[in-house]
Amino acid sequence: MKKIVAVALTTASLMAGSLVQDAQNAGLKAIPASASELIKLIDNTKNPITKAKVKLGEKLYMDPRLSKSELISCNTCHNLMEGGDDGVGAATGHMWRHNPHHLNSPTVYNAVFFGSQFWDGRAKDLEAQAQGPTLAHPEMAATKEHIVKVVKSMPEYVTAFKKAYGDNVKITFEKITDTIGNFERTLVTPAPFDAYMNGYKEALNAKQKEGLKTFIQIGCASCHNGVALGGEMGAFNVTATYKYMSTGDFKGDKNGMVKVPTLRNITETAPYFHNGMIWNLKDAIKEMGRIQLGTKISDKQAESIEAFLGSLTGKKPHMMMPMLPASTPTTPKPDLN
Amino acid sequence: MKKIVAVALTTASLMAGSLVQDAQNAGLKAIPASASELIKLIDNTKNPITKAKVKLGEKLYMDPRLSKSELISCNTCHNLMEGGDDGVGAATGHMWRHNPHHLNSPTVYNAVFFGSQFWDGRAKDLEAQAQGPTLAHPEMAATKEHIVKVVKSMPEYVTAFKKAYGDNVKITFEKITDTIGNFERTLVTPAPFDAYMNGYKEALNAKQKEGLKTFIQIGCASCHNGVALGGEMGAFNVTATYKYMSTGDFKGDKNGMVKVPTLRNITETAPYFHNGMIWNLKDAIKEMGRIQLGTKISDKQAESIEAFLGSLTGKKPHMMMPMLPASTPTTPKPDLN
Repeated sequence: MKKIVAVALTTASLMAGSLVQDAQNAGLKAIPASASELIKLIDNTKNPITKAKVKLGEKLYMDPRLSKSELISCNTCHNLMEGGDDGVGAATGHMWRHNPHHLNSPTVYNAVFFGSQFWDGRAKDLEAQAQGPTLAHPEMAATKEHIVKVVKSMPEYVTAFKKAYGDNVKITFEKITDTIGNFERTLVTPAPFDAYMNGYKEALNAKQKEGLKTFIQIGCASCHNGVALGGEMGAFNVTATYKYMSTGDFKGDKNGMVKVPTLRNITETAPYFHNGMIWNLKDAIKEMGRIQLGTKISDKQAESIEAFLGSLTGKKPHMMMPMLPASTPTTPKPDLN
Repeated sequence: MKKIVAVALTTASLMAGSLVQDAQNAGLKAIPASASELIKLIDNTKNPITKAKVKLGEKLYMDPRLSKSELISCNTCHNLMEGGDDGVGAATGHMWRHNPHHLNSPTVYNAVFFGSQFWDGRAKDLEAQAQGPTLAHPEMAATKEHIVKVVKSMPEYVTAFKKAYGDNVKITFEKITDTIGNFERTLVTPAPFDAYMNGYKEALNAKQKEGLKTFIQIGCASCHNGVALGGEMGAFNVTATYKYMSTGDFKGDKNGMVKVPTLRNITETAPYFHNGMIWNLKDAIKEMGRIQLGTKISDKQAESIEAFLGSLTGKKPHMMMPMLPASTPTTPKPDLN
């Protein structure tokens, strides 16, 4: 009875107030239209964004020579041309090994807005995250020594590090991953939803506005909130009973939880969920209602929410395809095994 | 005795005439400075280059969903950011399988100038070549049906095909590979060598000019000629006695020969030779002298030739990183096995 009253009240208040304000009240935030506001959100004091670092980080992000086989780059699993992920169920890396927990590669776009990184939130920021897959055996399978040696073997990289950090820079594994993280901080994709929240009422169509209302009403925004619509607060969602958990033994953090993923660019990042087990967005919406909210989401509601989620597909940063420096005789050789 | 006289005569004529003319006489050709001359060389009547085809072909070239796993694109082995190849000894593809003949992925840059494609020259042009790796099991391992279904499942691709070929276009496997070939035709990289041949005398330094002389004198240009400095005439080089042929049973064409590879961007495309067995360019130069010319190339000569080869490293086309269309519910799912 209480629940019904609460829902009725929410509906009434949504009808009365402005939808933008309701979205704000529900914790949804826009990517700021102002560059100075945006930089406040994406920058950090430890590793301030500079053009020199971003340009270098972009090359390192795209460079497969950072992996043991020299065939796998950050971009292999977090493909900037493909929504920032890889489009397969479980991350697949060195020697075609799959993630042992059947974990799906999350998108790198807007990951800067997350309160923590990885499905179990074990890395505090993008710089720390970048240290994981480079060394993980089913991913890039490299060693710190390999990565440092690769980078130091190419004069163009050494010069770029000096330009980015000063002539006395010591090129370490941590400095390399800091640079990659610095680049990743810029991977922000403003979308029609942001234009709407920032005052352009016509940026969403009627169906999308209806979907936003439904999204708030049925409680999606209680986890999918913040600028990323997920993951911002480091909030974790119960998945211990998760019925699609068919492979591996990943239990999330110590309480059996996984991080709430972003809904930005969700139309480009199937398959869904931490184990990549659902391919269809409408199915994913209904499944989340069932598991997380204990609610049966109707087909009509799901379609409406799906229309709203389409407004989160953003404009990707225009990027020139970087040209990587040539290997030299001191560049470590690839090891395919 | 005859040989010595011949060499002496060549040297004398080189000293007397202009080096540009000597290079031309040896069959070396520049990438034309004029756009209309260049288009004559790279275009074909069957599949004329248009902006719409190139833009579409670029996306298809970068799209891993054309492979069975949906993780491997043309760009995986012919990486445009890395000299147009993959930097490993033997091509590695689906399920981490290696090329059974231990064949090295050749660069796609300037491949348009080759008289035929593949190490054994079995494809007559880039359009025909693109049909090989997409279907080959150790590479992209797809079927024609998979590829056509993937492309047709995305409205953006369908619209782009209509724009490129007209509203009545039938999207077939052959049309898709034609489009990729069309894009590849534009991957031409003018280098200092071309500027020199086109009249800018200062485009090569003294050491590079000396290297070019040596290159002609010792006979490298007898195979490495034409615009690509290799492969243009469909000329094949004897490799039956090739000492680095340590893996697989690849015998080249029916006479045991492999195609002469281009020397353009050679500084960026180690390892060398059809089996990717030599990593150091100087070693490769000396080895070619021994095997192909029956000549001992001195360290000094090899360094000189290496300096000249550096003048073949060209300017890559400026490319925006393309954004690939999102998969839809009808896009075939990846199959990692």
